[in-house]
Amino acid sequence: MNDDYATLQLTEDGQLRNFISIRGLPKSILEQILDTAASFVDVGGRDIKNVPLLRGKTVVNLFFEPSTRTRSTFELAAKRLSADVLNIDIARSATSKGESLMDMLRNLEAMASDMFVVRHADSGAPHYIARHATPNVAIINAGDGRHAHPTQAMLDMYTIRHYKGGFEGLTVAIVGDILHSRVARSQIYALRTLGAKEIRVVGPKTLIPTAIESMGVNVFTHLEEGIKDADVIIALRLQKERMDSALLPSESEFFDQYGLTNERLKVAHPEAIVMHPGPINRGVEIASEVADGPRAVILHQVTFGIAVRMAVMSMSMGGREAERNAARRQQEAQHVR
Amino acid sequence: MNDDYATLQLTEDGQLRNFISIRGLPKSILEQILDTAASFVDVGGRDIKNVPLLRGKTVVNLFFEPSTRTRSTFELAAKRLSADVLNIDIARSATSKGESLMDMLRNLEAMASDMFVVRHADSGAPHYIARHATPNVAIINAGDGRHAHPTQAMLDMYTIRHYKGGFEGLTVAIVGDILHSRVARSQIYALRTLGAKEIRVVGPKTLIPTAIESMGVNVFTHLEEGIKDADVIIALRLQKERMDSALLPSESEFFDQYGLTNERLKVAHPEAIVMHPGPINRGVEIASEVADGPRAVILHQVTFGIAVRMAVMSMSMGGREAERNAARRQQEAQHVR
Amino acid sequence: MNDDYATLQLTEDGQLRNFISIRGLPKSILEQILDTAASFVDVGGRDIKNVPLLRGKTVVNLFFEPSTRTRSTFELAAKRLSADVLNIDIARSATSKGESLMDMLRNLEAMASDMFVVRHADSGAPHYIARHATPNVAIINAGDGRHAHPTQAMLDMYTIRHYKGGFEGLTVAIVGDILHSRVARSQIYALRTLGAKEIRVVGPKTLIPTAIESMGVNVFTHLEEGIKDADVIIALRLQKERMDSALLPSESEFFDQYGLTNERLKVAHPEAIVMHPGPINRGVEIASEVADGPRAVILHQVTFGIAVRMAVMSMSMGGREAERNAARRQQEAQHVR
Repeated sequence: MNDDYATLQLTEDGQLRNFISIRGLPKSILEQILDTAASFVDVGGRDIKNVPLLRGKTVVNLFFEPSTRTRSTFELAAKRLSADVLNIDIARSATSKGESLMDMLRNLEAMASDMFVVRHADSGAPHYIARHATPNVAIINAGDGRHAHPTQAMLDMYTIRHYKGGFEGLTVAIVGDILHSRVARSQIYALRTLGAKEIRVVGPKTLIPTAIESMGVNVFTHLEEGIKDADVIIALRLQKERMDSALLPSESEFFDQYGLTNERLKVAHPEAIVMHPGPINRGVEIASEVADGPRAVILHQVTFGIAVRMAVMSMSMGGREAERNAARRQQEAQHVR
Repeated sequence: MNDDYATLQLTEDGQLRNFISIRGLPKSILEQILDTAASFVDVGGRDIKNVPLLRGKTVVNLFFEPSTRTRSTFELAAKRLSADVLNIDIARSATSKGESLMDMLRNLEAMASDMFVVRHADSGAPHYIARHATPNVAIINAGDGRHAHPTQAMLDMYTIRHYKGGFEGLTVAIVGDILHSRVARSQIYALRTLGAKEIRVVGPKTLIPTAIESMGVNVFTHLEEGIKDADVIIALRLQKERMDSALLPSESEFFDQYGLTNERLKVAHPEAIVMHPGPINRGVEIASEVADGPRAVILHQVTFGIAVRMAVMSMSMGGREAERNAARRQQEAQHVR
Repeated sequence: MNDDYATLQLTEDGQLRNFISIRGLPKSILEQILDTAASFVDVGGRDIKNVPLLRGKTVVNLFFEPSTRTRSTFELAAKRLSADVLNIDIARSATSKGESLMDMLRNLEAMASDMFVVRHADSGAPHYIARHATPNVAIINAGDGRHAHPTQAMLDMYTIRHYKGGFEGLTVAIVGDILHSRVARSQIYALRTLGAKEIRVVGPKTLIPTAIESMGVNVFTHLEEGIKDADVIIALRLQKERMDSALLPSESEFFDQYGLTNERLKVAHPEAIVMHPGPINRGVEIASEVADGPRAVILHQVTFGIAVRMAVMSMSMGGREAERNAARRQQEAQHVR
């Protein structure tokens, strides 16, 4: 499976061609994403924020699960790369005419699309699409089920590296609803690949997947123990809409036990940063005093998120072009013989 | 009526100014559309797919009937011509405030729009709009009621010419629900104008309009007879949502009698191609073995469709500009006298 | 309060930085808007209607209240300035996940947005947003509750100046539902600032706010008296959806008493123009013979509206940049000391 993820995401020369999952990607690619994003963070501060890297390319936002926020970040990232963007809200369209998913994709490919940004409620959908797409189209996972949300994980990595200088020696605590979180899974893979010292998951037993220790993390059910001396604390969003009512008694009870407050953060490293993928539930997983306080870097995550998405989009497009050129050269070479 | 369609669609010099219907257009214009599209098909394969022909122009997609698929093809075509695109979903807007259609159009014209791409459930709506629009706005029909879908017909013609080299001597069979199909009507006009040898319509009696023979086609109610020796077979989409339940017993019964299978296609010309306007209903009008088989050119139709729409858009915009320049020269000449 | 509006909307050097309300803006700024718009009206008539003034800038249309018409005018204006546009329909998004308004805005700011165009059903929402936004984002009011619709008022001023040469000596009558009209409020402020001789409001007592005389207008409840010798007559849209049924008996009764007809307009100045913000209710506030007649300049208002919005957008962006440059110079100066 890991091999499959590698083959699917990398060209023969080891360049990014799809971005489906942190799994299967080597440290060098993750670092290349962070370095490329750094150049785009600078662009975001300029008077003219557009670069021509994807000029004349067509990016299709394929959202099978609605998410204005995530769609907007990808749309902005694509437009700042000068791409043409087509937003397709699947709920309202295509499949309503009884067309199969694959037929719809084949059609979009036939329109000379260059990239699909896929959001889906089912785990594995972008992987499935990438396995069946033509070589001309790059697939970017914008969140699938409980499986992965790799661009979110990479913007988190960018934020950590920006504030901590690197990953060596770092203790990172991920707090909250681990069970339903595609973000947590992607973060754990990224932190391991990039060499964080210790990864902790912190939350009520009912919201921590069994056997998660096999992913190389330490489990804590007590908040103060879990964030003790941590350099980075990531609060997850309580995905109310995904939760079975039996798993959790109430939001206020969650806040009482796991909500981040200034008082509780005293046990963390004095220079610990607090992160959150957003949108935040104030008074549920995080107190306003923390969200608006000096430790929080939540809005910087958003800024870095545009740059990281620009990096992933431009790198995968570059990988595709390298692949096409290689194929062309091979054909020509065969022709000569 | 035919004269009306000619006047409405052509400038005094015979250039395209609106694209409402294949009726009223001479063979030379249809061929010019195909030739112009050919140059855009090449563009679609390049790394940068945009050309500046409509830079600074405003294209408004006016969809009174929702169709994500068709809207997307026109949106992509306009963006690849570098136009600014405004999507207006009428169901959700304007008319909900009780504004009349003409007042809404006058407003959009006043915003200096250059082109309306009109989709409407009522036959004749784009024709009505074209008759009442200002000379500055070109009207493109993106499908109206049971009347016409001329860009679909032209992409079909492009596909036929691409695979068969031309229309002379060709036998073309259109199979399925002719009665409700705007596509079939436009195809028949185009095939006649371009000089196909024989046009056949094939389907159950209840789905074939009475007196359709007057359009110059031969009617078949038996599939194998209808596709015998045909060079081109076009399956129409079974418009379930448009059908009165009494006209047809069931989908499986339709497939039993008119569904295209490899077995049945044996009677067609050995090199016959199979076309479909999409989205296909697998196992209703076409078997998967055919849709995914070597005769099917369905996805190529989609690719050619973008190029044909680019051709129609750029030609009508060119016609409008020629018209304006001619009017200006005339005014100046009168001024001199 | 007026001071607050001035501070909020102008830089220290007196340039436009937000556009929330006509209140608080000096005559010189209103005239600058009209002069700048004049240059964009010319652009609208050219073959290429785009100018690069906002290239690389991100404009977010934040519509908390749906309005396809107003959103389209701002979208077109932004695109003709070469900006990237992000449309966010709030009803369908963000806040549905329980995120607070301020958190949503902070997020959009963090994406390096340059401008928010805000439409809101609550009076004061754009003002609130402008007070809390970062210095990097310009706020444009696209209509808030019953409070203000300043771009509409400025396009009306442009139209008046275009047809009447200026404001001195003019008598302007605003007819209809003054009570619920944000447009009327903004028009009154603009006409006073620009120096119109007399401003009249005309309508049934139940639709005229008490104490409106304090705004410097004369109140008429009889139509013919109200429009007698008027140079400009502005019919307001009857906001059916905003009216309590008790305030007005029926549309036809309204038309009988206040509907503009050719007969009634005989008492106005012989060269009086008739304006309307649209969309018009034919046979309610205006007869078709008037709406389509020679006095009506309603569609020209729409054309001028794009140019006025381009002017406001480019001026506020210029103000923001001047502000940033001034701050930078100040920082550098402090650094030197």
